[in-house]
Amino acid sequence: MASATAVMGAGAWGTALAKVLVDAGGEVRLWARRADLAAQINATRCNPDYLPGVRLPTGVHATADAAEALSGASTVLLGVPAQTMRGNLERWTGLFADGATLVSLAKGIELGTLMRMSQVIVSVTGVDPEQVAVISGPNLASEIAAGQPAATVVACSDSGRAIALQRALSCKYFRPYTNADVIGTEVGGACKNVIALACGMAAGVGLGENTAAAIITRGLAEIMRLGVALGAKTTTLAGLAGVGDLVATCTSPHSRNRSFGKLLGAGESMQSALRAWDGHVVEGVASCESVLALASSYDVEMPLTDAVHRVCHQGLSVDEAVVLLLGRSTKPE
Amino acid sequence: MASATAVMGAGAWGTALAKVLVDAGGEVRLWARRADLAAQINATRCNPDYLPGVRLPTGVHATADAAEALSGASTVLLGVPAQTMRGNLERWTGLFADGATLVSLAKGIELGTLMRMSQVIVSVTGVDPEQVAVISGPNLASEIAAGQPAATVVACSDSGRAIALQRALSCKYFRPYTNADVIGTEVGGACKNVIALACGMAAGVGLGENTAAAIITRGLAEIMRLGVALGAKTTTLAGLAGVGDLVATCTSPHSRNRSFGKLLGAGESMQSALRAWDGHVVEGVASCESVLALASSYDVEMPLTDAVHRVCHQGLSVDEAVVLLLGRSTKPE
Repeated sequence: MASATAVMGAGAWGTALAKVLVDAGGEVRLWARRADLAAQINATRCNPDYLPGVRLPTGVHATADAAEALSGASTVLLGVPAQTMRGNLERWTGLFADGATLVSLAKGIELGTLMRMSQVIVSVTGVDPEQVAVISGPNLASEIAAGQPAATVVACSDSGRAIALQRALSCKYFRPYTNADVIGTEVGGACKNVIALACGMAAGVGLGENTAAAIITRGLAEIMRLGVALGAKTTTLAGLAGVGDLVATCTSPHSRNRSFGKLLGAGESMQSALRAWDGHVVEGVASCESVLALASSYDVEMPLTDAVHRVCHQGLSVDEAVVLLLGRSTKPE
Repeated sequence: MASATAVMGAGAWGTALAKVLVDAGGEVRLWARRADLAAQINATRCNPDYLPGVRLPTGVHATADAAEALSGASTVLLGVPAQTMRGNLERWTGLFADGATLVSLAKGIELGTLMRMSQVIVSVTGVDPEQVAVISGPNLASEIAAGQPAATVVACSDSGRAIALQRALSCKYFRPYTNADVIGTEVGGACKNVIALACGMAAGVGLGENTAAAIITRGLAEIMRLGVALGAKTTTLAGLAGVGDLVATCTSPHSRNRSFGKLLGAGESMQSALRAWDGHVVEGVASCESVLALASSYDVEMPLTDAVHRVCHQGLSVDEAVVLLLGRSTKPE
């Protein structure tokens, strides 16, 4: 059992990575919060709530019992929403195997503490920071589950763990690249959902591809400013976990955050847009608040994130926000 | 007449910028190679070959007489295909007003000489390099002609000329940013069409958004490598003329190079794809050859550009090229 892998969270991304791990030759225990979903996955080999139409290999064993999922697992992928990471880890304290690699799949900054997910993991579990890894990249779960080729970043300060994780995840259609820059990898993932909301809003009010490209470029600039202030490498943010993930999330019609922003741009209120999403988490709505607070604590200006935050939490209209998104300055680039 | 502006070339981009200049308060003489097109533009206020459905303001005066267009023009926008820039300039020698600002709109590297467009302009006309400017950014002509908001980069080593050009082009929907880095601005524009061909090929064989994002990210990395070798600033390539233009060209269904690549990916031969384009220039097909030669002369590896070049000029199948585009390395990012 020492080489077992647990994926904690049976959302779209956790389920897709469970499939990748099996397609790469492993066995996976997939923890679902709801017992009925775990039973359904085991009975039908399908997760209709999050990955409809995708057949899961028999190597994926679902369970709603966290202790069962984590027992002896040397690698644990944490696929829960960013703002529930701490609460989940607290419930699982004492269940992690000694020396296990804990891998964050969550993209966000914790509200209140302004911690990155890897920091939350260290702070709750007390593991050595070298045991904590992050997976992030241009990875729309539905495409990966369909076997479409994709690349990602596996970041860990311990290169041995990074390489082990790379091997465990490498299969015909999924290609992980290792990177020692955990901070940059996390910053890219945490910030991009907010910019995707901005792109969605612009699309929702009818603006085109030039506008989207300008928003993505300005978004990248403010993500890089924050990353550098936090100690990230700019090369990470120019790579798959930065530009790559940003572009995929901001341009894909399948991106959840972009689609949510588009609803707002088309005139839906926050309340009705959230209702339309029926409880599916839209990370950018929470992230804009924590990312902005983190940036502010480092004196970093993030005008796009600020505009999105005002729409999501302070009642600014999308039309007014779009003026902010397009910028009004004529200073040098 | 000293403040007149000439736009040399009535393709989609030249015509769209002629409209911008008038909407920004100027008067423009728009040179068209074909006398019948010039007459049609003046008679109908429309350029049906390149910007169908767009009404041109009365301040745009079309002519097929280059001497008439250039007479006394203090600003000249050169909107001809990259590989015809030298021939056109040679025909126009002696017609440029003293001290005029010559602005390249062309995106490419000259075959044979491996010169950037600003270098071609200096070498043919003998003007001071400070007189030469470049406009480049995420600027799909059809959207700009429709009045959709867009931002661009105006690069010139003479900041006074850059600012004058910025003012001449600033209008409600078009926002130019100045930049002193002519090299970076040109490299971004010259290379992005090749990467857009690659993205189109991947889309044509049925690959999705994750793949596109990975290709864009790898493309940006090789563009940055070439740019740095040539003396560009990485900030320029992380900005509108780099990432911005790359993203717009690679993701938009309206992008000419992406659409051409998609035809190839869907199984069309080069010959039939070129026929389908009916003489419209696909810059990336020529650019991949000159960009690759330029990179090679600086010992810079550009594996994506190489793969596109092999498809366009050496008979490699798209299926084989896609394997190269996705990369086979598992080394660190």
